[in-house]
This record gives sequence, C-alpha cells and structure tokens, in this order.
Amino acid sequence: MALNLIGVGFCDEKDITVKGLELVRKCEKIYLEDYTSLLQCSVTELETFYGKPIILADREMSEQGAEKLVEEAKTTDVAFLVVGDPLAATTHISLLNLAREKNVPVQVIHNASILTAVGEVGLELYKYGKTTSIPFDNPNLQTPQKVIIDNQSLGLHTLCLLDLKPKEGRFMTIKEALDILKLHQKVIGCARLGCENSMIKYGLSGELKDFDFGKPPFCLIVPGKLHFVEEESLSLY
Amino acid sequence: MALNLIGVGFCDEKDITVKGLELVRKCEKIYLEDYTSLLQCSVTELETFYGKPIILADREMSEQGAEKLVEEAKTTDVAFLVVGDPLAATTHISLLNLAREKNVPVQVIHNASILTAVGEVGLELYKYGKTTSIPFDNPNLQTPQKVIIDNQSLGLHTLCLLDLKPKEGRFMTIKEALDILKLHQKVIGCARLGCENSMIKYGLSGELKDFDFGKPPFCLIVPGKLHFVEEESLSLY
Repeated sequence: MALNLIGVGFCDEKDITVKGLELVRKCEKIYLEDYTSLLQCSVTELETFYGKPIILADREMSEQGAEKLVEEAKTTDVAFLVVGDPLAATTHISLLNLAREKNVPVQVIHNASILTAVGEVGLELYKYGKTTSIPFDNPNLQTPQKVIIDNQSLGLHTLCLLDLKPKEGRFMTIKEALDILKLHQKVIGCARLGCENSMIKYGLSGELKDFDFGKPPFCLIVPGKLHFVEEESLSLY
Repeated sequence: MALNLIGVGFCDEKDITVKGLELVRKCEKIYLEDYTSLLQCSVTELETFYGKPIILADREMSEQGAEKLVEEAKTTDVAFLVVGDPLAATTHISLLNLAREKNVPVQVIHNASILTAVGEVGLELYKYGKTTSIPFDNPNLQTPQKVIIDNQSLGLHTLCLLDLKPKEGRFMTIKEALDILKLHQKVIGCARLGCENSMIKYGLSGELKDFDFGKPPFCLIVPGKLHFVEEESLSLY
C-alpha cells in the first residue's frame, strides 16, 4: 500500500511515462489534481487510456484533504496524478512530507514540467532565475516586477506563469499579462508549450499584444543577458 | 521524415513517456547521447525494451555531427535520445535550431530533468536561481561560488551539478565538490535523484563529507532563504 505521486506531463494521455502508467493501472483509487494547470485532452480520454475511473481532486481536497489521502494510502494503493511534474508546486511537497511523517510509503514518478518545456524557446534552462506568477486578483504588481528586475540584475531569464482558473474557463492572456507588467523590452510569449501545436513569439510588448496565441495555457518569458546561441534561437521566432 | 528529440528520463527504460516510446519504435535510426548524464540501466536494457538497436552518440557526434544528423533526418525517421529532458543542454538547442533552419521537421518529447527531480528535496522549484556546474578540470572556482553568492543575495537556492565522465568511470563525489566549494553552511547532498533508490542528506559541509552516498550521479543544493514548508521538508533528512 502506498501513495503514488505521478506526473502526467501536459498535453495528452500519452505523456505519462511507461512506469507511471503501469503504476496507475495497479492502483485502486486514482485522483487527478485539476486546478493548477490544464491538459490538452479530456479526463474521459485519460480514463479510457488508463482503463480506470478518475476522481477529480479540487484545491480543497488536495490541501485540506491531504490527511485523508495519506490515511487512505495506508490501506489502499492510491495514485495522485498531477499535470506536469508532481513536485513543482508547494502543495504537493506538503503532501509528500505528510506521507513521510506518517510513515506511509510514497513513490514519486517525475515528468516534464513547464520549467523544462520552456527549453523549446531556446534559452538555456540553467540561466533562468526565480519563477514568478502573475495573478488575476489583487495583483501585487511589485512582486513579479521585482523578480524580473532582480533576475535581470544577474543576467538571468524570468519565466512568468500566467494565472488560470480552469473551472471558470478563465486563462490570463499574454496581452493581459503584458498590460499588467508594462515592460519596455522584447519578450517571449508562449502558448501550449511542450505540445505539438505550441506557439512561440518574440517581440516588443506592443507587438505581442496584438498577436492571437490561440488556446491556453500561456506563459511569458522575459530574457536576461543573451548568449549567441540564445540570440540565434530567438531569431527563429 | 523527421528529427525526433526524445527525453528518456534518468533511471531506467520505463521512464520514457508512452508517446516517446511509440515514436522510438517507429524510427529507423536511434541515437542515444551518452556523455552528459547517466542512466541507472544499461543500453542493452533500453534496446530490449524498445525493440530497436541503439547507436551511441558521443560528444563529437552530437556537436560536430549535428549537420549529418539533420541531413539524415531529411530522408529517415531519426530518434535522438537524451537522458533527462532533451532541451536542458545548449548542445541540443543548437541541434533544434539547425533542424529548423534547414526546414527539417523536428519534434521534441519532453521528460523529467534533474531540474525538476530536485523537487524531491522539498525546496520550491520556483525559488531556484541560476544552476551551476562544478567541473573536474581547471575549476574556475569563482564561477560556482559567484553563482551561489548571487543567488543567495536574492534568497534563491542553487543547484550545483557535479561533473561526470561516464566513459572514464569518473563521477565527482559530494565530498570532492564540498572540498572545492569550501562552504560554511548547511547544504543538501543528493544521489540518484528521481530514482527509487535516491538518497538525500541535509547537514553541514563537514558532516556530509563523511557520508557514503553510494552510486552516482550526485548533485548538491545550497539553500537560500527557507520558507516554513521547506524547513519542514529538510527536517526530514
């Protein structure tokens, strides 16, 4: 009996690893955390491919329900599926800690994350600084802007994750984020990174605001100091 | 016909995604880049699982041989397998750029990377600054030390990747890295992160030097400012 934290990647049902899939098929209870990100396929497609019913776990369940989940994993093989990598968010680190404290065996199956998928843009992953989020509500503007300035002071790139509320069908667009940030430099707008139909555009804030990026999720990258290979990559967009 | 850059994760043959596996099985030529990292399984185990022979591509081939590889992908379905995520290293970004410049269709299948597997340690991934490498030869000591100091000035954590020369069987140990860095604070030593038998230890530099971490690969994390959930995570090691 164990708690299995399994990353499912971020496009469709086939982005899970072979190891992750075998584990899901062995588990009796399968939860999918459905608030922090967005897949390009439906839950039904996941269920069909896994051959297992899925219980959607909303924010309340994965945060306040952690105790219950860990308790359940004492007597049942539980899979907790997370879009992207299972440990990219603090909530899931807390879940991991709780399971360890309660001596419940826990296994983590890693997967791609937006933090590695940004590699497609062609900026070196090692040269990203702190990641920042741009929230819809009560935007404490100073925070993302300070992160960008701090990172740039060290020549580092900044990944800005744009807020999303999948249940309400709300996804912050590149334009909305640029309106909030008021940047006066070239930036990189991305949609559906890591998926076959991903879209990447490099240009001045004003240029990107008018561009139609299509379906979510979106993110924005503010480059720091560019190496010539990085310049070459960006010249392709 | 296309060039397929496919991440294989970092433990064994089952860490490839279902999508990646289907693609490998469709390709005529399969290369595995074998110098930047290390799997916990043999090439033969990969070949058996994939049902395909694998050609090992050394540094020379993936850097100077990029032209040849892209040329080959014009007439053949080529898979270029990379340990971890395929775009974590600059070399592969150059390969991607070259394929795009030559109008050769290219597909990237992402996977877990050491950059996300460090999530297991329990420090927030968003709060890592620049990643640094500690090389065996002619160590320009200032570089990793400056990266650590710069990151800490912003409260950020630093992931230090330790050099490895798999062909010569040389892997920098945590002890060697700590001898080079001469740190006077608590650090986190890790071995085989992302694998079932991973090992994580938190302690003063002097304490970790005497600890036997077992088999490679190793990495070292120098924490920045700690959030209480992060403190809680580290208290478990």
